Amino acid sequence: MSFTRITVVGLGLIGSSVARAARARIEGVQVTGYDADPEVRATAREIGLCDEIADDADAAAREADLVVLCVPVGAMGRAAADLAPALPADAIVTDVGSCKASVVEALAAALPGHVIVPAHPVAGTEQSGPTAGFATLFNHRWCILTPPEGTDPVAVDRVAGFWRALGAEVETMAPDHHDRVLAVTSHLPHLIAYTIVGTASDLEEVTQSEVIKYSAGGFRDFTRIAASDPTMWRDVFLANREAVLDMLQRFSEDLALLQRAIRWGQGDALFDHFTQTRAIRRSIVEQGQDDARADFGRTHE
Amino acid sequence: MSFTRITVVGLGLIGSSVARAARARIEGVQVTGYDADPEVRATAREIGLCDEIADDADAAAREADLVVLCVPVGAMGRAAADLAPALPADAIVTDVGSCKASVVEALAAALPGHVIVPAHPVAGTEQSGPTAGFATLFNHRWCILTPPEGTDPVAVDRVAGFWRALGAEVETMAPDHHDRVLAVTSHLPHLIAYTIVGTASDLEEVTQSEVIKYSAGGFRDFTRIAASDPTMWRDVFLANREAVLDMLQRFSEDLALLQRAIRWGQGDALFDHFTQTRAIRRSIVEQGQDDARADFGRTHE
Repeated sequence: MSFTRITVVGLGLIGSSVARAARARIEGVQVTGYDADPEVRATAREIGLCDEIADDADAAAREADLVVLCVPVGAMGRAAADLAPALPADAIVTDVGSCKASVVEALAAALPGHVIVPAHPVAGTEQSGPTAGFATLFNHRWCILTPPEGTDPVAVDRVAGFWRALGAEVETMAPDHHDRVLAVTSHLPHLIAYTIVGTASDLEEVTQSEVIKYSAGGFRDFTRIAASDPTMWRDVFLANREAVLDMLQRFSEDLALLQRAIRWGQGDALFDHFTQTRAIRRSIVEQGQDDARADFGRTHE
Repeated sequence: MSFTRITVVGLGLIGSSVARAARARIEGVQVTGYDADPEVRATAREIGLCDEIADDADAAAREADLVVLCVPVGAMGRAAADLAPALPADAIVTDVGSCKASVVEALAAALPGHVIVPAHPVAGTEQSGPTAGFATLFNHRWCILTPPEGTDPVAVDRVAGFWRALGAEVETMAPDHHDRVLAVTSHLPHLIAYTIVGTASDLEEVTQSEVIKYSAGGFRDFTRIAASDPTMWRDVFLANREAVLDMLQRFSEDLALLQRAIRWGQGDALFDHFTQTRAIRRSIVEQGQDDARADFGRTHE
């Protein structure tokens, strides 16, 4: 029951990785790619990303038995609506959006009567565009499915099988819970990283060149995720507003506590806090979600 | 004019890297190691870290023509005072402390009449202890010297030559300016990382196991620096309090601005901010201060 005619809509980092992984790992599959941007379509053709690149949404949808929507979450509804007229009645739709409640709603509205199995592969890099993707991006990363209640369980199984075929481990979760989990493990870290990189570039007496030169003291780790795609992240924060604002509030309270400890010279409070945070790092490395090599295995040669 | 009898005091990540680098790269040098912790001394002996491990401060100081203090910044004054009685009059003292104004003061008080050339090699990993160090840690990283006004320029040159021999590029700066630059490129990022890892582990409805599983969405990058040595970082925040609190205030203001943009759905403001931060990343990679490979070159195989 695996899919044989897959259409990938949106050929950025994630979409182009889905296309590459599907072609590399699913035997006999036909992958059609589509992107609303003609330049992206031209690049995708040039690099031979898919078996076929469609020039409009109708052509992209017509033959598909699986559609994978890989556009920013704010563009999901529109992308789905464009496909709707030509989409076969038995085609299943999945997506890769970083927040799910709003996407579930947008897709249901745009594709009434279609089977939709929303998904979020928790994987990525700081690079963007059709040339940035690679076939192994999803290997050993989690892909979270958030099927709304009442979704056909056979369709959910088939979509789970698709993501497993791409190398991912699959987990299922309610859309709202997904959005709260990701607000803390992904959205808040990105917001903080974007903020601190902005703060550092706005100082009067410390030059931009000093910030760059001495970034190895910790700052450079933040700049990687603050180099992520701006459109994608604008949409995430607008779509997952409530959960992000709540996590941000908690973060600010915790930061105020450490700020106060610094102001009042409370060394023991600082030490205790800094000790607790090491265990989480150890578990992340043990569970294969990060590189065990010191300093992210950066070269010092 | 290079040094021939170097004493390294404090054999953690940085001290053990200094010892390894000095032995690997300075011909004919004799490296003596000392650590106040007998367990660390035993480990250092076991792994053959130095030519000799001294069992007390007197023995460590007696023969040195260069002493490199590699203890937490709050312990610098005490470590220097312990060495003072046996330290040869013409020995030069340098250190590796992450903040400089307080260290300059502490060392001057503990070692009256000695030539002191404070230094800060901007390099490190999240790992600690004598087995964590490696000889190439300082390669292509900056080492900032902060000699107080009136320091013998010949001594400054010799210490600069020492750090260059270890692979570092050397820059000179006033202690106060150093502390403001590093507050933003190193101290604030560590504080933020420690905070967010704490916030994530304190949620009621998101489990620790979920935080770990889905950390690849961005969170894991923060856990690396939040796994750094707690004693070292407690001391840094206490010693560089004013600059850290000022940077923190600026960060909080900038965060409040983004928070407001999210609350009011101001997508353009978010997009503009997220676009500006990409340029800094590019410069850091171009200047060799970070890995150009996507996702820190993490393996996806």
